[in-house]
Amino acid sequence: MSTDPIQPAFILVNPQMGENIGAAARAMWNFGLDRMRLVAPRDGWPNERAVALASGAGRLLDDAGLYDTTAQAIADCDYVFATTARARGLTKPVMTPERAMDHARALSAEGKRVGVLFGPERAGLENDDIVRANAIISVPVNPEFASLNLGQCVLLTAYEWRRQTAQIVPEVVEMAKTEWAGHVEVEKLGDHYEDRLVEAGFFFPETKAEGMKQNLRNMWSRMPLTRADVQILHGVMRQMVRWKERGD
Amino acid sequence: MSTDPIQPAFILVNPQMGENIGAAARAMWNFGLDRMRLVAPRDGWPNERAVALASGAGRLLDDAGLYDTTAQAIADCDYVFATTARARGLTKPVMTPERAMDHARALSAEGKRVGVLFGPERAGLENDDIVRANAIISVPVNPEFASLNLGQCVLLTAYEWRRQTAQIVPEVVEMAKTEWAGHVEVEKLGDHYEDRLVEAGFFFPETKAEGMKQNLRNMWSRMPLTRADVQILHGVMRQMVRWKERGD
Repeated sequence: MSTDPIQPAFILVNPQMGENIGAAARAMWNFGLDRMRLVAPRDGWPNERAVALASGAGRLLDDAGLYDTTAQAIADCDYVFATTARARGLTKPVMTPERAMDHARALSAEGKRVGVLFGPERAGLENDDIVRANAIISVPVNPEFASLNLGQCVLLTAYEWRRQTAQIVPEVVEMAKTEWAGHVEVEKLGDHYEDRLVEAGFFFPETKAEGMKQNLRNMWSRMPLTRADVQILHGVMRQMVRWKERGD
Repeated sequence: MSTDPIQPAFILVNPQMGENIGAAARAMWNFGLDRMRLVAPRDGWPNERAVALASGAGRLLDDAGLYDTTAQAIADCDYVFATTARARGLTKPVMTPERAMDHARALSAEGKRVGVLFGPERAGLENDDIVRANAIISVPVNPEFASLNLGQCVLLTAYEWRRQTAQIVPEVVEMAKTEWAGHVEVEKLGDHYEDRLVEAGFFFPETKAEGMKQNLRNMWSRMPLTRADVQILHGVMRQMVRWKERGD
C-alpha cells in the first residue's frame, strides 16, 4: 500500500554465485522484503542459476535494479547500512541486526530511504564500500565461530525487519475445532471421576479421602482443558466402567 | 561453566541429507549452541557429508546423541518445542521463535531441560512427533511465501536464543511439595492409558483409532502436569482396572 513506509533495499555487492543471489531473493521474500539491487554480479545479469534457485521469489530478480558501482546503487538512499563480520578499523557505529532494523524502521516511517549492503561471498564488503555507509551491521555471533554466509546474513537481517514490523501475535493456541471448556464442564468432569472412583474404592483410607478428592479437583481445574479434552476424559472413564461391566 | 543454564538441545528428527546436518551444526555453533541430537538419520551415522559441511563445528557432530525414536530423544527433557510451518489441527500453544526462546531461557534458568524438535527436510515433523511437544514454534514468515529450509529454521531459532540476553524473571508457580513431571513420566503415563484403553476397547472404530491415540497423547503433553498429578492419574487408571478385576 502507498501508505506503508518504503522498505529497505537489500543491495548485493559483487555477488559471485547465481545460486546465492537466488537464495538471497528467497530469504528476503520469506519476510516480505522485495526491493533487491545488484552491483556488478560476477557472472553477468540475468543469471539462470539465480532464477532456478529463487523459484517462488523470481519476481524479485525480475524487478532487481542493476548498477555498475556501489555509489550508484545507493545514490537515492538517505541512510545506508553495511553488513560485515569483522572489525574494519573504521570509526563507524556498529549495530546488531536488531538495533539496525529498529533504526531502519524509524527512518522509513519518516519517509527516508534505507539501503543495506551485503558483500561478495568469499571476502565480504571492501572498505571502499563500507566507508560509504552510515553504520555497520554485525550479527552477534559466537566469537569462537563466525561462519555466516551471504544467504544467512540476508535471512537474519530480513527476519529482524519483519520481527519488529509485523503485527506480533506473541502466543496463540491453535484450537483444533474446539474451544476451552467452561467451568461447569470441568466441574461435571470432576463429579464424574469422583463418583466412579468412589464406587471403585479409590479414596482410601478414609482419613485421606478428602485430601485425595481435593487434589483431583485441583488438577482438573488447573489444566487448560478444551471441550474436546473433556469429552475424551469422560469417554476414558465411561469405557473403563463398560469394560468392568462386560467382565471379560 | 557449571553455573550457566543448560542450553536447549536441538533435535533433528529423521534428517535426510548429511549436508543439512552439517549446516545445522554450523548454524547452531554460530550462536554458541552445541547440544545436538539426531533421531534415525536417513543415511545412517556417522555421515561423511555431514562432517565435510560442518567444518569448524564438527565437534557438535562428534558429541551428538543418536536415538531411534523421538520419544527416546526427549526422554530427559522437561519441556519440548516442535518447529513447524503449518497448522496441524492440534490444540497446542503456537509461539514465535522470539517468544519460544524467551520461554526457553526462563525454563533453563530454573534448571529445566529444553528440547527443540526439527523435522526432516521435505515434509517436516509428523503429527506423531508434534503431539509429544509442549508447544509449537512457527516462524512468522510472509503468508504469501514460506520457504524456510531446515538450516534456516535452525539458524533463526539459534539466533533468537542468543539475541535475548536480557535478565529474565521466570514466571513463578507455587509448587505444593512437588515438581513438574519430566517427559519420560508423561510418556509412561500416556503408555499406561493407551495400553489399558486398548484392552478396554476404547479406540473404536479401527479407522479412527490412530487419531484418537494422538489426541490423547497430545492432551497429556499439553498439560502442565506435576509428578503428583502423574501419580494421581496412574492411580485412577490402576484403580479402575482393579475394580474391573474384582468384578463386584
